[in-house]
Amino acid sequence: MEPLDYHAEERSKASFDVEEMKIVWAGSRHAFEISDRAARLVASDPVFRKDNRTMLSRKELFKDTLRKTAHAVKRTIELNLSEEETHTLWFYVDQPAYANLHWGMFIPAIEGQGTEKQKQKWLPMAHNMQIIGCYAQTELGHGSNVQGLETTATFDPQTDEFVIHSPTLTSSKWWPGGLGKVSTHAVVYARLRTDGQDYGVHGFIVQLRSLDDHSPLPGITVGDIGMKFGSGAYNSMDNGLLRFDHVRIPRNQMLMRLSQVTREGKYVQSDVPRQLVYGTMVYVRQIIVSEASCALSRAVCIATRYSAVRRQFGSENGGPETQVINYKTQQSRLFPLLASAYAFRFVGEWMKWLYTDVSKRLQANDFSTLPEVHACAAGLKSITTSATADAIEECRKLCGGHGYLSCSGLPELFAVYIPNCTYEGDNIVMLLQVARFLMKTISRLVSGKMPIGTAAYLGRVEHLTQCHCEVQRAEDWLKHSIILEAFEARSARMSVACAESLSRFSTPEEGFGEISADLVEAAVAHCQLIIVSKFIEKLQQDIPGKGVKTQLENLCNVYALSLLHKHLGDFVSTGCITPKQGALANEQLRSLYSQVRPNAIALVDAFNHTDHYLGSVLGCYDGNVYQKLYEEAWKSPLNDTVVPDGYDEYIRPLLKQHFRTARL
Amino acid sequence: MEPLDYHAEERSKASFDVEEMKIVWAGSRHAFEISDRAARLVASDPVFRKDNRTMLSRKELFKDTLRKTAHAVKRTIELNLSEEETHTLWFYVDQPAYANLHWGMFIPAIEGQGTEKQKQKWLPMAHNMQIIGCYAQTELGHGSNVQGLETTATFDPQTDEFVIHSPTLTSSKWWPGGLGKVSTHAVVYARLRTDGQDYGVHGFIVQLRSLDDHSPLPGITVGDIGMKFGSGAYNSMDNGLLRFDHVRIPRNQMLMRLSQVTREGKYVQSDVPRQLVYGTMVYVRQIIVSEASCALSRAVCIATRYSAVRRQFGSENGGPETQVINYKTQQSRLFPLLASAYAFRFVGEWMKWLYTDVSKRLQANDFSTLPEVHACAAGLKSITTSATADAIEECRKLCGGHGYLSCSGLPELFAVYIPNCTYEGDNIVMLLQVARFLMKTISRLVSGKMPIGTAAYLGRVEHLTQCHCEVQRAEDWLKHSIILEAFEARSARMSVACAESLSRFSTPEEGFGEISADLVEAAVAHCQLIIVSKFIEKLQQDIPGKGVKTQLENLCNVYALSLLHKHLGDFVSTGCITPKQGALANEQLRSLYSQVRPNAIALVDAFNHTDHYLGSVLGCYDGNVYQKLYEEAWKSPLNDTVVPDGYDEYIRPLLKQHFRTARL
Repeated sequence: MEPLDYHAEERSKASFDVEEMKIVWAGSRHAFEISDRAARLVASDPVFRKDNRTMLSRKELFKDTLRKTAHAVKRTIELNLSEEETHTLWFYVDQPAYANLHWGMFIPAIEGQGTEKQKQKWLPMAHNMQIIGCYAQTELGHGSNVQGLETTATFDPQTDEFVIHSPTLTSSKWWPGGLGKVSTHAVVYARLRTDGQDYGVHGFIVQLRSLDDHSPLPGITVGDIGMKFGSGAYNSMDNGLLRFDHVRIPRNQMLMRLSQVTREGKYVQSDVPRQLVYGTMVYVRQIIVSEASCALSRAVCIATRYSAVRRQFGSENGGPETQVINYKTQQSRLFPLLASAYAFRFVGEWMKWLYTDVSKRLQANDFSTLPEVHACAAGLKSITTSATADAIEECRKLCGGHGYLSCSGLPELFAVYIPNCTYEGDNIVMLLQVARFLMKTISRLVSGKMPIGTAAYLGRVEHLTQCHCEVQRAEDWLKHSIILEAFEARSARMSVACAESLSRFSTPEEGFGEISADLVEAAVAHCQLIIVSKFIEKLQQDIPGKGVKTQLENLCNVYALSLLHKHLGDFVSTGCITPKQGALANEQLRSLYSQVRPNAIALVDAFNHTDHYLGSVLGCYDGNVYQKLYEEAWKSPLNDTVVPDGYDEYIRPLLKQHFRTARL
Repeated sequence: MEPLDYHAEERSKASFDVEEMKIVWAGSRHAFEISDRAARLVASDPVFRKDNRTMLSRKELFKDTLRKTAHAVKRTIELNLSEEETHTLWFYVDQPAYANLHWGMFIPAIEGQGTEKQKQKWLPMAHNMQIIGCYAQTELGHGSNVQGLETTATFDPQTDEFVIHSPTLTSSKWWPGGLGKVSTHAVVYARLRTDGQDYGVHGFIVQLRSLDDHSPLPGITVGDIGMKFGSGAYNSMDNGLLRFDHVRIPRNQMLMRLSQVTREGKYVQSDVPRQLVYGTMVYVRQIIVSEASCALSRAVCIATRYSAVRRQFGSENGGPETQVINYKTQQSRLFPLLASAYAFRFVGEWMKWLYTDVSKRLQANDFSTLPEVHACAAGLKSITTSATADAIEECRKLCGGHGYLSCSGLPELFAVYIPNCTYEGDNIVMLLQVARFLMKTISRLVSGKMPIGTAAYLGRVEHLTQCHCEVQRAEDWLKHSIILEAFEARSARMSVACAESLSRFSTPEEGFGEISADLVEAAVAHCQLIIVSKFIEKLQQDIPGKGVKTQLENLCNVYALSLLHKHLGDFVSTGCITPKQGALANEQLRSLYSQVRPNAIALVDAFNHTDHYLGSVLGCYDGNVYQKLYEEAWKSPLNDTVVPDGYDEYIRPLLKQHFRTARL
């Protein structure tokens, strides 16, 4: 029997080679194969089942996470997976767990900030998971501003120890994942005090729990911080709180690569350049951008497939209603998100190169590109995660009422995704950093300092503040050069306008505070330009496969022109384009939607998401949505009994009018 | 001892009479008193406790809902509450329950569509809750398009009965609240078939469950549809599914006010005007708009209070960091939402008048205002609920990381609020209805038909498409007349542009489909104008209380100018304002934020929300946020034991390197 495929007709309409597009999406054939294998491995393993996740109580969910984590460790050993394969397997397990922080934060912190001796001591144990660690930085009263942390680490020269202490309620460590119930150790950030002085925030390795019976060590108060957004989602993680009551650790548990405290209590800086930390930051943010394209593509895949199944209105002579994906209102909301998924994918790919490049330079003590790279990574992190969070919710709305059901997968995806907007740098704080970089770049133009990399266009600021867009017909908007110049001109003009505003204040700091909302908008314009330009660069590469490049051309144009439409005020009020040209862009956009429409299902198939990874009845590959919704409903805990628990106490007395006497 | 108040200094800074503002917010002294009493009644009753809601399993949560509902019924009887007081009490119980549908949909359906005889039979039982009903309209495959429903009601003249049947999987009733586990009866919408003809969708009263033991009656398949968005939230409700297998009901259970089937099976329309249903629609949508202001004010209250407590960066010489509410980026995101809460409150109040007015007219067979009123109600429903949903999430982000904790109250508020965007008319479908009305209004201008009410301004379309905004200095933007004309001109020009586009297509229907995204934008512009104009009208009333009017003036200007900034593309590209005037509006906005700042806490105090209703540690009245967060954390189910369940099976074997042998 042929497998059921409600999307077969849609799939047959595609005018490009989906298998080739899968390679483009994955980045390479190798990456595709690793990813494909790991996804199927996880999907076929009953331990990794996640369809019941939103029905579990917090304790059940947490135990399920512990089980999955241990099972994943076991499988990676049994299958002798490479590091890349292991990483990909964890990714597809798709459940936040302490192991993410152990591997992703605790170990890298020691690698980056520990001396060779410290690495030799701690890393083997950590790699074997003989100890499990977390990253204890943020505090109850302190998030973005690391310099405001209150926990103290006071050196006691008598015993050669640091005394770690939480002096106030607000100094309680708060949020670290894996801290609440699992971690045996933590890298704790605390103010270093020695020699009667405060040397600011440094990292220390602190053991939290007994390796024998897991009980907290003396002086340690530790626990879970409670329920978080949504059901399932991040509730699988034991984000924790931690207080120290004069906890003593040996001096050599201060991470001493960048600076150390001597036996005598003297604070000494090493000659390792501080800039090295920026390399790690770029690396982490590149991963976040790449994961944004994963989350976004997942939401878009669900919404696109269901939009092809779902029909509303438009029935003619009692025939079937119209597929909602055929409505322009649906297309104008959905297709820009589809295009964004591809755009974020490619900019993430480019950031991988950026990381390699900056790493090489740092090795060679070349710090010249750092400010630009740092601004770029901060900005792209901010803009892709904000857009993805909004897009997931938009996709949910695009699924109508059923998107609100947990089994649509979208509520949990939203809940689990949104912390990306806050952690690793709050998105608004990130944009303000980009803005600072832009203002500095512009102020240096007068002294002839030419900007580089993604800011190079600002070197043509004179041209960009005067140029006129040449669009005369809608099709003109398909030219890369025209799109690029419009985005460059918009960004340059907004930055210049901010710089001019700043000059009117008595101090730059006052001005920066006062016009910060405008600065954020200028930073957004700059970052959107980067994404558009990297998409265009991607198209200049050789891309094989029948029709693949044409599709990507369309998506690139949809991405750019839908941004232009959304931010029309920027483009028109800075004089980059005329209102008429804005209207032509909109007209071209409509025609692009018509070209995307027949390829929409194939374009989301190219993400190669398994039904397990999607975790959505609405987005299932075969499109048999209604049958699956019906089956899913019966799994509701309330359907365990025909008559609900509480009927005798709280419903029957009402119906029988016994409510005056009943013990309600 | 003085009660603790971390906000005391903020409160002392307010330059207006908060108690008087509370009356303005409530609508009248009477409304304030009813609301204040009900809120305190609920807050002080331990049965109505809700701080543990997100930790309950689905079954526990549902039983909790049954308990609260029964208790509320009992309290209203014991306290002999009026209808208004009862309604307000239910509102403050703040937990979706079957009773909402029983009172809000089942009873009104019978009242509106039943004959006198039917009302006499069913309403007393319903009012006493001897029967509990729900409203079974939407189906698995059919939402917005009521005419697409598939359930059939076939008249059998032999037995004088209707046979209710679900012919397909997609015809399963899906979503009705209260249906899943509680309702004994339902108003079921089904295609009426008699006399060999399909007469379209009509309502029927159908008993679903035994009044003796609550078991489903023969031929009825009924159950819960499963988990929904978030924890707590709408999971307290038994949204249900329902299938009929040739279920027979007496002919007189068809709701026969508007049309009936005779004993012989003849379909007869009554002479009751069909337009009467629109009155109910306006009523329901007015409630939705008014509840938007409640939900929005709740989120804004939480974010504003916490923004005054929370400090980040900006410490000088080791002093305290800066309150985040002092940052312009925070103000530019928060204060427009604060202003929107007030704006939605007042437009909701005005809609109450609109409902009274249209009801009177319908009584007198005057249907002249119906199209305008209908468009207005649909549009305001759409725009206020979409804005509120977005605003709740924005408020969560404005609370930084802690907003992600369930105890911030914001995750559950978001989850429970968002269905407002879908039910009672999908928000995009609603805007398309507004757009149709606008296009019709414009097309009739040529024949001299002058528009009325909220569309009256389109009668001045010639002036509005040519006028020039007179703003020369930032302060000019404070003039109501200037703001109003800018919004009128923007809306008129966008509508006219759409009308012109439409005329270029071969049929209006084709054009309507093709440019529907533009039509939605034109509808948004029209609805925003209504809200701005109703705020301005409110300010023309006599408003007593020291400084109260000044505050409202500021908020009105913040609302209008922040909209103008957000939609700058509309205003500039239609030539309503120049880029320079747009920049001046932005400048004025910044200065308004400075005026709102010292009054911000008092402006949210004026909502008079109890800590119980807010349900937020971050938004508590006394501002003692960190102490409360710390206490709340220890209530996490994971903190029931020091060592988590699962340690022995899944953590210890890893640490001890037993994972090769252990049964993981």
